[in-house]
Amino acid sequence: MGPGVVAHLVRLGVLSSTSDHASVVSINLFVTLLCACIVLGHLLEENRWVNESITALIIGLCTGVVILLTTKGKSSHILVFSEDFFFIYLLPPIIFNAGFQVKKKQFFRNFMTITLFGAVGTMISFFTISAGAIAIFSRMNIGTLDVGDFLAIGAIFSATDSVCTLQVLNQDETPLLYSLVFGEGVVNDATSVVLFNALQNFDLNKIDVAVVLKFLGNFCYLFLTSTFLGVFSGLLSAYIIKKLYIGRHSTDREVALMMLMAYLSYMLAELSDLSGILTVFFCGIVMSHYTWHNVTESSRVTTKHAFATLSFISETFLFLYVGMDALDIEKWKFASDSPGKSIGISSILLGLVLVGRAAFVFPLSFLSNLTKKEPSEKITWRQQIVIWWAGLMRGAVSIALAYNQFTRFRHTQLHGNAIMITSTITVVLFSTMVFGMMTKPLIRLLLPASSHTVHSEPSSPKSLHSPLLTSMQGSDLETASHSHIVRPSSLRMLLSKPTHTVHYYWRKFDNALMRPMFGGRGFVPFSPGSPTEQSVHGGR
Amino acid sequence: MGPGVVAHLVRLGVLSSTSDHASVVSINLFVTLLCACIVLGHLLEENRWVNESITALIIGLCTGVVILLTTKGKSSHILVFSEDFFFIYLLPPIIFNAGFQVKKKQFFRNFMTITLFGAVGTMISFFTISAGAIAIFSRMNIGTLDVGDFLAIGAIFSATDSVCTLQVLNQDETPLLYSLVFGEGVVNDATSVVLFNALQNFDLNKIDVAVVLKFLGNFCYLFLTSTFLGVFSGLLSAYIIKKLYIGRHSTDREVALMMLMAYLSYMLAELSDLSGILTVFFCGIVMSHYTWHNVTESSRVTTKHAFATLSFISETFLFLYVGMDALDIEKWKFASDSPGKSIGISSILLGLVLVGRAAFVFPLSFLSNLTKKEPSEKITWRQQIVIWWAGLMRGAVSIALAYNQFTRFRHTQLHGNAIMITSTITVVLFSTMVFGMMTKPLIRLLLPASSHTVHSEPSSPKSLHSPLLTSMQGSDLETASHSHIVRPSSLRMLLSKPTHTVHYYWRKFDNALMRPMFGGRGFVPFSPGSPTEQSVHGGR
Repeated sequence: MGPGVVAHLVRLGVLSSTSDHASVVSINLFVTLLCACIVLGHLLEENRWVNESITALIIGLCTGVVILLTTKGKSSHILVFSEDFFFIYLLPPIIFNAGFQVKKKQFFRNFMTITLFGAVGTMISFFTISAGAIAIFSRMNIGTLDVGDFLAIGAIFSATDSVCTLQVLNQDETPLLYSLVFGEGVVNDATSVVLFNALQNFDLNKIDVAVVLKFLGNFCYLFLTSTFLGVFSGLLSAYIIKKLYIGRHSTDREVALMMLMAYLSYMLAELSDLSGILTVFFCGIVMSHYTWHNVTESSRVTTKHAFATLSFISETFLFLYVGMDALDIEKWKFASDSPGKSIGISSILLGLVLVGRAAFVFPLSFLSNLTKKEPSEKITWRQQIVIWWAGLMRGAVSIALAYNQFTRFRHTQLHGNAIMITSTITVVLFSTMVFGMMTKPLIRLLLPASSHTVHSEPSSPKSLHSPLLTSMQGSDLETASHSHIVRPSSLRMLLSKPTHTVHYYWRKFDNALMRPMFGGRGFVPFSPGSPTEQSVHGGR
Repeated sequence: MGPGVVAHLVRLGVLSSTSDHASVVSINLFVTLLCACIVLGHLLEENRWVNESITALIIGLCTGVVILLTTKGKSSHILVFSEDFFFIYLLPPIIFNAGFQVKKKQFFRNFMTITLFGAVGTMISFFTISAGAIAIFSRMNIGTLDVGDFLAIGAIFSATDSVCTLQVLNQDETPLLYSLVFGEGVVNDATSVVLFNALQNFDLNKIDVAVVLKFLGNFCYLFLTSTFLGVFSGLLSAYIIKKLYIGRHSTDREVALMMLMAYLSYMLAELSDLSGILTVFFCGIVMSHYTWHNVTESSRVTTKHAFATLSFISETFLFLYVGMDALDIEKWKFASDSPGKSIGISSILLGLVLVGRAAFVFPLSFLSNLTKKEPSEKITWRQQIVIWWAGLMRGAVSIALAYNQFTRFRHTQLHGNAIMITSTITVVLFSTMVFGMMTKPLIRLLLPASSHTVHSEPSSPKSLHSPLLTSMQGSDLETASHSHIVRPSSLRMLLSKPTHTVHYYWRKFDNALMRPMFGGRGFVPFSPGSPTEQSVHGGR
């Protein structure tokens, strides 16, 4: 596509930005850019510095520059960053797929640590950043920002970018770190959004113990109900697909039902003002544990890859979108009036993010290590640094929350609001690009032997079993071997390890009650005429 | 979901129909209804009268009634039928999947007949209906309708509903009829849209030979360029995926690239004012012939089912949408003033549809039979009736075109326009429900032995080969056996049958030039380290 065509497209897009033709133009542009990102991401796969997110961000930024030049500085983006678009369409597939593909055993084994990091850690980060913002920004002349704004800044910059983290860490090379950082990221996303929403509903002028307690109660309520809704939707889908043998007539109906039920769980949570992120994450976990085993073989392959693809497209789209939106002229007007102050605020925020994360990663790792007896299970000093570093990136959740706080009721024309928006964009771009680029080299530096030590773990050789469903069945084979064959030595282990005891009773409960009812590995009837294998012929 | 909840949802949706909350509510409602349609459709699968489209239509109508009652007659729909939404998001996956899953051999073997029916037949139908409308409606007192409107009515009611047709006929039971009716449906959709667009651009006050010739030239240009664009996009995707070994690093990237390239072809066609339907249909055919063979095994399963699922969801959504929209109060105000006239117009239109289709199915079948020598290849009298009947249904394309013609510039407040909209809805509902319900029994009545005779055809036994990729590989196995093993007796056959000769030279060209370049069955290198099988392990 030559520059002339782009200029033409852009002119059309900008001049008639409300008409239908403009939306056709922008869809064309976005789809073309997405294809470019995929091809470039593939070509740069072997590169140790650049990952897909950074590629998409850079392509987005470049497109923004081209648009800026062709419109002679009038505009830099085709679509305005829409918070609703982000929360309604882009985020659900990403988080659902995260839950669907997560290695459940690792996740639940480290469940306590993950919750500690994700919930308590985010709280610590929130208080640190808020306190820092109040202490520093209130002395600077930024404009009319009140306590609510400062607390919101704390919530906005506590949201790590789990999407970008996923691309930097590798589930097979560093499984412990991956499950910790990623699990934390999901819980953290939810915590930040819940915190942010809780802040909007509270009167912040009189803060006392009662308000804080009510706040915590509200938080716990949201956390539990959201999780429950996700688990319920997942189980419902498993039950329907198992009972009605949906696959008997059509594979497509199974896949469609799984997709729609997952999305419905998210939207129902949003409708009830719960945390859709948590809901859809747990729905994903339950679906991969029960529903996925009830469907036909081809549905299994399809869902595994289709969900991953949808998530992949959403992620790439997101980074493109953030990159293109970053150069919006209107927002930068105020920042360009006082460039020194703008850079100062961004640097202070970056510093607060670094400190806020350090303030919980190291103490909580210490606490977590205290509960573990075997040295192999402890989080080493080097791993702590990687956990600290890998969670420093800020992403689209931060931007969406910042837009919500600083543009919804009052316009960006207000000095303070405009500066906070541009600072958020600066922090997101800087942290994603600079911190993100340095993560892979840092991991190689700190954990040079990681890829070797892990490949000798019992989980890996199994990934050579089935060529088609490797990572998913691999992880299930593990779980199955653990659950069905209770080895003699494990009794002593169970007594010494509380998490394992919980896990053991859960297994018993799962095998005795849940699997016979909702299906799951080894509990789907393979009788002749059952949906599992024959129906593939039928089609629709 | 109890009625109380529905009422609550509806009230929220109606009172604040522009806010974000309303969109969350309507998404929840739609997704819930979609799930209900899937489960009900599954339960009614064995029923000989009802198919999935009719289920969705009825659920949509019922929801419309519930909404109408709960809002006390103020409104009956949550989302307004948006023509752009239909053409930009719902139609592309349906048509692409149609091209992707079509049995290419049957399609190309009957290519001449299909084109004859789809292009020439639609023209005949268009002229018949337009002439009938001019003759009858201009004598009735309907309001201000001019020649352009009457010609538009011809184009609107020439668009058969290929989606509904697909659900009534079965590709395995009646392959000839399926490929004829379905292939005709796709070409017909394209023809109607092209006709309709061509009508918008012409000055209809002075019709002479030059205008008609220019019109036909325009039509051929659109037809050829649209096809070319589709073929080009498909080949480009095949070339990129083959050359770059995209599957080496990630299966998801292949699937994403196929999806995005297909969508891009449609949107580019729309941007260039070509027929996106034709483009994306041929893109689907080319992708299933070349690209699909270049991707990894799991990508093949995924694309096959994911595209079918997306198409299935779009179809169901579409019928729900049409059902819910059918009860829009505002449009029925005028119709209820003069119910007799409204019913009269709808009946006349239904009659014109019946006559218009008969006017080309029987003569063109006769023509087509003249070119065929073997009696087994001729279209029998009974088959002609089925072809005539199965294409009588009118669907969302008609509604979208009617909205475009009668609401865009002038409001539905105008008497004539309002009546045309309600008549279109009536015709669509009546033809889909009544004609649709009668199709399955009619086929059983007219072609009682069809399922037996066809199962003894050479193509069917092959569908037992591979449990996973039956219908797709089945059709390719056929093609392969035809192309590679040129049997001695086929030389004489080629001389007597021109279509077969074309097919033979195409095969030669395909094997010598196209497949080595763009991949395809048997032409993907299986060397060690190639993308085809190993990369499945990698994941992303």
